[in-house]
Parts: sequence; C-alpha cells; structure tokens
Amino acid sequence: MQNINQEGLLCKINSPDDLKALAEEDLDKLCHELRNYIISILSSNPGHLASSLGTVELTVALHYVYNVPQDCLVWDVGHQAYAHKVLTGRRKAFEDIRKLNGPSGFPRMSESVYDSFGTGHSSTSISAALAMAIADNLNGKQAHHIAVIGDGSMTGGMAFEALNHAGSTEADLLVILNDNGISIDKQVGALSQYLTKITTSSTYNRLKNKIWNILGGNTDTYSKHKTIFKKASFAFKSLFSGKSNFFEALNIRYFGPIDGNDVHTLVKTLSDLKNIKGPKLLHIITKKGKGLDAAENNPTKYHAPGLFNPLTGEIDKKNTEKDNIPKFQDVFGETLVELAKAHDNIAGITPAMLSGCSMNKLQAVFPQRTFDVGIAEQHAVCLAAGFATRGIIPFCNVYSSFLQRAYDQIIHDIALQNLHVVLAIDRSGLVGEDGATHHGAFDLAYLRCIPNITIAVPSDEHDLRNMMFTATEHNGPFAIRYPRGKGYLTDWKNPMHKIEIGKGVRARQGKDIAILTIGVCLHTAKKAADILAKEGIEAAVYDFKFLKPLDEELAKEALSEHKYVITLEDGCITGGFGSAIAEFATACKMQNLIFRMGIPDKFIEHGSVAQLQALCHTDTESVVNTAKQILSSDSHFSTQTFD
Amino acid sequence: MQNINQEGLLCKINSPDDLKALAEEDLDKLCHELRNYIISILSSNPGHLASSLGTVELTVALHYVYNVPQDCLVWDVGHQAYAHKVLTGRRKAFEDIRKLNGPSGFPRMSESVYDSFGTGHSSTSISAALAMAIADNLNGKQAHHIAVIGDGSMTGGMAFEALNHAGSTEADLLVILNDNGISIDKQVGALSQYLTKITTSSTYNRLKNKIWNILGGNTDTYSKHKTIFKKASFAFKSLFSGKSNFFEALNIRYFGPIDGNDVHTLVKTLSDLKNIKGPKLLHIITKKGKGLDAAENNPTKYHAPGLFNPLTGEIDKKNTEKDNIPKFQDVFGETLVELAKAHDNIAGITPAMLSGCSMNKLQAVFPQRTFDVGIAEQHAVCLAAGFATRGIIPFCNVYSSFLQRAYDQIIHDIALQNLHVVLAIDRSGLVGEDGATHHGAFDLAYLRCIPNITIAVPSDEHDLRNMMFTATEHNGPFAIRYPRGKGYLTDWKNPMHKIEIGKGVRARQGKDIAILTIGVCLHTAKKAADILAKEGIEAAVYDFKFLKPLDEELAKEALSEHKYVITLEDGCITGGFGSAIAEFATACKMQNLIFRMGIPDKFIEHGSVAQLQALCHTDTESVVNTAKQILSSDSHFSTQTFD
Repeated sequence: MQNINQEGLLCKINSPDDLKALAEEDLDKLCHELRNYIISILSSNPGHLASSLGTVELTVALHYVYNVPQDCLVWDVGHQAYAHKVLTGRRKAFEDIRKLNGPSGFPRMSESVYDSFGTGHSSTSISAALAMAIADNLNGKQAHHIAVIGDGSMTGGMAFEALNHAGSTEADLLVILNDNGISIDKQVGALSQYLTKITTSSTYNRLKNKIWNILGGNTDTYSKHKTIFKKASFAFKSLFSGKSNFFEALNIRYFGPIDGNDVHTLVKTLSDLKNIKGPKLLHIITKKGKGLDAAENNPTKYHAPGLFNPLTGEIDKKNTEKDNIPKFQDVFGETLVELAKAHDNIAGITPAMLSGCSMNKLQAVFPQRTFDVGIAEQHAVCLAAGFATRGIIPFCNVYSSFLQRAYDQIIHDIALQNLHVVLAIDRSGLVGEDGATHHGAFDLAYLRCIPNITIAVPSDEHDLRNMMFTATEHNGPFAIRYPRGKGYLTDWKNPMHKIEIGKGVRARQGKDIAILTIGVCLHTAKKAADILAKEGIEAAVYDFKFLKPLDEELAKEALSEHKYVITLEDGCITGGFGSAIAEFATACKMQNLIFRMGIPDKFIEHGSVAQLQALCHTDTESVVNTAKQILSSDSHFSTQTFD
Repeated sequence: MQNINQEGLLCKINSPDDLKALAEEDLDKLCHELRNYIISILSSNPGHLASSLGTVELTVALHYVYNVPQDCLVWDVGHQAYAHKVLTGRRKAFEDIRKLNGPSGFPRMSESVYDSFGTGHSSTSISAALAMAIADNLNGKQAHHIAVIGDGSMTGGMAFEALNHAGSTEADLLVILNDNGISIDKQVGALSQYLTKITTSSTYNRLKNKIWNILGGNTDTYSKHKTIFKKASFAFKSLFSGKSNFFEALNIRYFGPIDGNDVHTLVKTLSDLKNIKGPKLLHIITKKGKGLDAAENNPTKYHAPGLFNPLTGEIDKKNTEKDNIPKFQDVFGETLVELAKAHDNIAGITPAMLSGCSMNKLQAVFPQRTFDVGIAEQHAVCLAAGFATRGIIPFCNVYSSFLQRAYDQIIHDIALQNLHVVLAIDRSGLVGEDGATHHGAFDLAYLRCIPNITIAVPSDEHDLRNMMFTATEHNGPFAIRYPRGKGYLTDWKNPMHKIEIGKGVRARQGKDIAILTIGVCLHTAKKAADILAKEGIEAAVYDFKFLKPLDEELAKEALSEHKYVITLEDGCITGGFGSAIAEFATACKMQNLIFRMGIPDKFIEHGSVAQLQALCHTDTESVVNTAKQILSSDSHFSTQTFD
C-alpha cells in the first residue's frame, strides 16, 4: 500500500499554514487522506492506532481555526496526537514514529514548537493549558488555550483540581472533552455513566436543539445572544438543561455534545467558541478507531494493535504467535486467579489497565473481586489500603511510571499504617517505544526510602509466582516489580511456595569480579559471565531478588570475596540497588571498587528495549566491556592517603 | 481553669457506649462540656483548635447514632478529630495530645480501634471509607461507613476520583461534607463558590424545605418515601433542585445542607440516613472555631493558635514575641516579594498554604501574581510547569510531605521538560508535633533520583535567599528545601547574590574525622565539633549546600583527607545525602569508613523537634558520641581479605 497519495492534499501540507490555505470543503478529503496515511504507516510500524483515528477531524479543525503555537494546544495523554504530528511538519518523520531517533509517540516540546506541552501521563492538560492562559494574561498576550482531554482522562483527580481552579478564573481556556466512552478498556465510573446519560437520554434529545439554539450554539449568532447568555443564571440554565450542571457547577460553561467526527460542525463550533471568553468546555462525541471497521468494533484490541493489514485491519499473526513463553503480565494475571481461588479474601485493583496488566483474567473468574477504578492511581492505592483494614488482601497493579502518581498514598496510607497490600508494579525498567514518560526508571529509588515496605524483584516467572504467593502471606506492604514483555520460561507454571523474604542467591561462582544484580538483569549478567569466561575472566553472579530488605549476608559474601564489583539494575543509577550496595559497603568499611550500572541520570527516549539498553550501557556487551576495563585499569583509579 | 467538670457528663464518658447511654436531651450539655474541655486543654498544650471546635456536635451525633468500630468512621485530614479522641477512651490521654508518647494529633489505627483509618494528609477519606464498605460487602458484613471531609479537602483530586468510583457502586457509604468555607486560609476555587451559592441563593432558600420534605429529609418519614425517592429520576430532581447536581451527576445522593452545629438535627438526620442504602452525601454547615468568639472571628489565626487564654481566646504573647530571628517561611515570603519586585515575570503558587508558607506576603503586594489553588498539589506543580512554558517563573511552595502528592508532576511535567520552575519545599526534615504524616523525611531521597533537577539545601537564611536569587536565573528545575520554624540569623536580610550551583564549603578544618552535612544540620555538626575539640578530637565540618549536583571536588577532598567520615542530614538515612556520598566513595574506590546519620528507616512519631532528633540520633550529643565511638572502635569494624 502506498503510504501517501502524491496527487492528494496531504502531501502538500507542511505546516498548519498550508492547512489554513485550503477551502473548507476540502477538509473532508484531507481527513480521509490523513486517516489513510496514519493507518498505512501504523500497519507496518506499530503505534497507538485507535485513539488517533478518532481525532482526525478534531485535529484538522483545530489547526484550521486556531494559530498554534501562538495559541496553545495541549493533548492530554498525547497518544491521540498522531494527526497533529503529521500536520505540523512531521509528515515524513512520522514514518519512524516511536523508533529510535524518530518522533516520539507523544507530544514533546523539544520535538516541535507545535507541541505546546509534553504529555504521556493522563489528566495534565487542563492544568497546563490553564497555566498558559493565565501566563499569557499576565504577559498581556492575546491567545487561545485549548486542552483536549478524553473522558477517561477526565476521571483523573488532577483534571478535577484544574477544573476547580479554572472555574474560579476568567482564563480564556477551552477544554475539549473527547468522549468516546473508552479509555483503553471500557470506560468505568460515575462520570462515565453521567456522560452516557446526557448523550443518550430522551431528555437530552428533546432539549438538545432547544437549548443549543437558545444559547446560540453552532451558528453565527453567538455574539447576538452573548448578552442573554451571560445573564442566564446558573439556576435558569439548570432548569432547561440538566446535562450541563456537572461542569457548570464548577463555573465552566458547557457546550455540546456535538459530533466530533464531523469536521464542518467542528470548524463552525470552534470558530464560534473563539469569541466566548472565560473557561468553557466543549463536549464532542468521537468514535475511537474511526475509519477502520475492525478498530471501531474493537477499540481495546486496536488501541495499540501491533502490525496489521491496512485494508482489512486483520492483525498480523506475527503479533500473536505463541512461543509458549508468556508475558510477565500474563503470569501475574494467571497467578492472581490461582491465588484468588485459594483465598476468598484476595481482590484485584487496577487504575484503567484491566487488559494491560492482564487483570481481565481475574475479572473473568471473579468479577465481584476485580476493581477497575478508572484512571485514578491515587484512589486505587488508597482503596487498597482501605481494603486491607477490613481483611481483604488487595493486589493493586499499577505501571511503574504511573505509580509515581500514587507516591504519597504508598507512604501515607499503606506503609505508615503497615497494611497488608500487594503492589504489583508492571512495566518497570525500560519499556521501549513508549519512551521517556513511560520508562519505569525510578521505582527502585523512590520505594527504597519508604519504611516497612518489602521490595521484591523477580528475575523470572517462577520468582514472580513465588513472590506473589509469599506476599499473600506477609502481613505488610509488599511491592513486586517486574518488566514489560516476555519472560524466560516455557514451564512457567511452577507449584508456588513461600520464599524467605530478603534472601538472594549466588547464581554463579567466580573469583575475579562479582556482578550483583536484581531482577531480570540477572540474565544479562549471566550472559556476560559466559562471555567473560571464554576470555579467562571468572565472574561471579549474584541475584539479590529483594531490594528491601537487602540480603546483607549475601552482600558481605560478595564484597568480601571480590575486590571488583559491578552492580547492574534496570532502574536509575541514583538511589536504587547499586546505591544500597554502596551504602552497605561503606558502612562495613569494605574496600571495594564498586561500579554501578543502570539507567543513567537522564531521561531516556524511545526505541526498542535492546537499543535503549545499549544506549544505557546495561546490555551484555557493556557489562563485559566494563568488567574487562575495571580489571585492566585498576591502577588508573584514584587512591587516597590518610594523614 | 479546671480542665473538666467533675460533676458533669463528660467525665463519665469512657467509650461511645457511655455516650449512647445518655438521653438525647443531654447531648447539648455534653457538647458544651466537650468544647470547653478541648479549649481548656489546647490553651496550654497547643494543637489544632478551630477545626475541632467546629465538629463537636457532629462527633457526638456520629458516636450516638453509629457503632464504631463495627461501623467505620474516617476523618479526612484528621485534625478535626479531637472530640472523637476524647469520646473514645482517650479523655485523660488527650491532655498530652501531640506530645511525645501522648496521643497523635491525627487519627491513628495503632492508637485506637476507634480510629478506623489513619489520616493527616487531605482527601483520602472517601477512598478509605468506600474501600471499607466494599470490603465489608465482600465479607458479608453489615456495617455503615462514614467519611467526614471538609470543603477544603473536597478539592483534592483524589476525593473526586473516589466519588467517581463510589457513584458507580452500591456501596453503603455516607460522605459528610463538613462545609465551613475555609481550609486553613479562606477556601478558594469553583467548588467552593458552588457550595456558597447553593447555601445562600434565593433558589436554595425557596426550594430548600420543599425538596427536603419531598425527599423526606430531616424527618422520620424517609422510609415511607423511599420508593418515591428511588424512582425520582436524575432529570426530575435537577428540575427541582439545581443545588444537588454536582454530586448527583456522579450518582451520589445529596442531602442537605443542614446545620452541623445543631446536635439534634444531626442525630435525627444521621438516624434517618442509616436507612438509605447506597452512596450518599450529607452537606452540613459548621462554624470553624465554634464556641470561642475569637476563633470564630478569625479561624485562620486559630487554626493552630499556640497558647491562648481559654476564656477570652487572647493569644499568649509568648507565641508572638519577636526575637528578631525570623522563621524560614517568612524569609521565603519576604524574599519572594523582593524578587517579584525585581522581576515582573515571577509568580507564586501555593496549594492552600498561603499563610503557612508566608506567601500571603506576596499576595499583599502582587495579588495578580499569587495563586492559591486550594488543596491540589498535583495541579499546583503542573500549573507551575505550564507557567514556565510561557515565560513566567513560578515559585511553587509545597510542604515536603505534601509534595509526595505531586511526585509524578515533578518528574513528568517539570523535570522531563527541563522547565524553569522553582520548587520551594517548606517543612522539610522533622517537623515536631504534627508527627509521622507530616515529617519531611523523604524529599532528599525521592528527589535525588530525578534527572535535570537542582536540589539546594540552605543551612541558614542567607543561603536560602541566595539560592532563591540563583534559582531565578537558572533555566531549569530548582528545588530549595528548608525546615519548619526559626532560622539562625538576626541580620538575615543580606544583599542577595548569585552562587555557584553545586558548590559547598568546608566550614571547619580538622584532621581526625570529617562530618559532612547538608542544610541546617551544619549547626549540629559545628556544635559537635566544638565539643569534640574540647576532648582533643579535631573534626572537620563540610557544608555541601547542594545535594544535586553533588560537589564531588569537596567530597574528594573530605574523603581523601579523612579515613573516618560521618554524614549528617535531616532526611531519611536511605537514599539521601549519605547515600550520595557512599555512591561517590565506592565509585572512586575510597577506603573510608562512612557512618551515615539521619532519620532512621522507620516512621517517626510526634514530639518536639529536639526530642525527635535525640530519638533519631541526629542531635549534637549523638554526633559527638558517634564520632568518639568510630575513632575508638575502628578495630571492631569488619575487614575483608581478597583472594
């Protein structure tokens, strides 16, 4: 399939200015081409498909009506911003989206002036756009400020905090609520029910045109009615239009809902809204996966489908071929079901990652004990704490980088009260193509300083299962941190048993140098040791399994027997496992040279995990080279003399 | 003043059962005694006064109607729970509230079975009570679950996340919205305006009785009308009662507002509500500071007034006497005004701590550039990021332990985008009487792992001012962390100048041992060195001033010249400053014995700062003893031999 029609409109759009030069009647054609282009590229270079297909018309309309970057446009989460990237000078580069050195899968200020704010995590857009509106006001600058936020992201508490602030200001802020009834999985929660109600109720259908027309909606008559509109009191409007009160209670003027896949309606409405001052919300209804039947019918599957046939949508078998080695997330999901069968008081909690963390397996068997709370990490973690106070053992699964959102809840609600909560931390370490916002780089460091918490890091599926089993029986906070993607074992379904907390193992003997690892880095270390062995260097390998409590006996053994020590972890090099070893070494006055390897102290961009490991020097080759260098150049290292 | 009337009712109440034995007509008398008792105790043992006075009637009514701990009662924040403590077996102990080994100023599960959930930070109560309701349902247990949350705490995003979840469940949850129009400072934001509107509008006054009666409110007729009530559709109710829609949009049944300082209305209403299933919200209006005129008239001042005259409310002069040594917070506030005068583009942001962090000084001079966003740390920090993208330099001031709430925003919105934001972190280190939830113990550790960020730790007021000056000119994230309470200098208002980022100083020479410090621990170290000198031990003292970037040159000097090293910080011992030094030492193959001193790896309770420092062994005496012990017992430390 040809990626782009050389006779079409899209190939001539190199900036929003080119788009603005089009006649409005050409926009349908442009949307069609844009959608096909995205489908074509993503069919062979996997990315976030369904969200971006839903916002094609919105993107075209926004850039047709507004003047970014003078106006500010913030895409919440940002994985729906592919059309935006294509239209803002990155059409050709888009072919390499999410690849190393290609464009990020999310907006990035460092990538383009048209990306007003970098996103990746949910629910930040209203805060950011509101800030820009206030700042421009302070600067005496006239501009429009738009946040595009999905109905899923709207459930994140931060969005509410921002609405609450916005509603008390005169800021020229437009929030576009992109309502497709789905985040990654089916949307949950009361707000979602409310939005469904107001778009489907007979009251809504009856009142829709009436109210919309009274308020001058969707016509050029806004200005005429503006005076009336302004005078319309809260109470008056609520009598006519029950639908709008949630937002209007927060002083946010509510418009809509309108068809968010109709580019002309959007252009007209946005043009009208440019003249309405103050904070306002436009509710648009879009179809996630729009334009690709298969994606429309199964937006969860097509959220990020991998390779697929661009014409039929058929998903490439290569994506789903089984090699009998499961993903860590599936081992978590299956094991949770096993444990829940054995213990009536086990429940699962996920903040909107039901399929992403494979907790849908638990839901299938125990729907009453499965809680998808929506994009709400803070609530998810505090809910877990509350469960524990009443004898329920929660397995709360949150991706590592998203768990940063619930940091206070881990400290204040779980650890301080020493509650029996299992935190399953998926997507830890480098995650690959999702890039800087999604790497689980900091969890070892930010968890290690918290008292009372056990931090377990499995090196394979058996470890994961045994740690989950052990966590079930341990009366205190227990974090288990494992990576994105596949494990290592075909016979992963071992009979689970309780393991000793804080106990690691020596995985390999060797006298010349010790490689101390935690988690799946064990495999890198073993491979490195194999290679080193061939060159006559005997490297010992230690698998600590627990960051906290640290196996001090094992550390003592390793440090006593080896002058040269490498620590290797798939977490940030500052404050994590290597730091724990350094603390221990200096406290015991060990005289080792400790070389810490891990994610360096900078933000790591996107690319394949293998590419990024090489960049971070946490791959096998880097470990081999480092070991050799340490052994050969000891004399170059500084020495000290005391008085 | 006699603390308790030995002839009264209160002295016989040793548990909620004793309270339930009273006739309802006696409750007014009990409330009166309870209020006087709280005033009496707090007048000589400072604590959170105004909040607790406002909730006396509510507390009595709750324990009269419900059966805690079978029923669950969660006090949001918890500083309004003093009456609860007095009524639940802690009347005598209450005299020592917030003192070392006395009761905590907040609910603590470890302190009493009547404290269903520990609190301290805001906006957790709905999540926790909802969890308990769901858990009891899973356990097949009948119980009531109540969250008491202020209008201030309701603006925290987590409360919204929990409401959104609650509204999609059948959980038997009662949220009591304790609306006094104030958090610590005057309440801000659109939700607050909404609540004011519905309690003051003529629509409300006209419809109040009508609706309330239709729904059976405040009478014994709830049950009769329950069927009608259940059938009342969302649209129907919205027609009659614009006031309720914000919560009802989230499927939370709304009741009220009622007078929350009328114990009989409360008892009747709560008794009625026991029979209403599902998630519901009762809106009560209370007077913060109720019963002490001075506190009613100035609830901000009387939030935690220190010592005062229990009869007149007059605040003890000892609290306010000036010794010309300012609090760090006031130096921050004054300096921010100076900088804002020099730079038009400086703005201040605070999440509801306008007076607590002395940003009211900025507000007085530049109200347009001062942003109190309510209890909304996440939004505050992301707002700062947004400001920075449009050329405004935000000074965002958040207490250390509350900043845990915005951890992801620091990483994802500020540091990743390398934005010019100044994070002023007040109340770092041990804060004293507020205890475990409020100590700023973890910030050095949780910030150190974040790339791009500068972490400055002033040892005195001059440092603070110079660091603020330098931060204004540094184009990147800049955190400045300083403690609660007084500084050290009378001539604190130095002419500010730019300092070299990442540069520390040797504050004292000495050959026997080096004490490496950061922040105000410098003063402890210097005192210790003075004492050691008298005993013939020469201790060098280093003030690093920056945790990140670490002054490696200074570290090298200190480690090269001293075999024995102590690191001293008022932060957790794991992952912070001492850890940074240990990392550096092992990376350079330094052969030091490094003894890290700081807040140990456990949660520290409440008490005076001096008491807690002694407990944590971070006081002068502990440093002296540690130094002596290290020097005298070196041979006891383990040594290693390599093959």
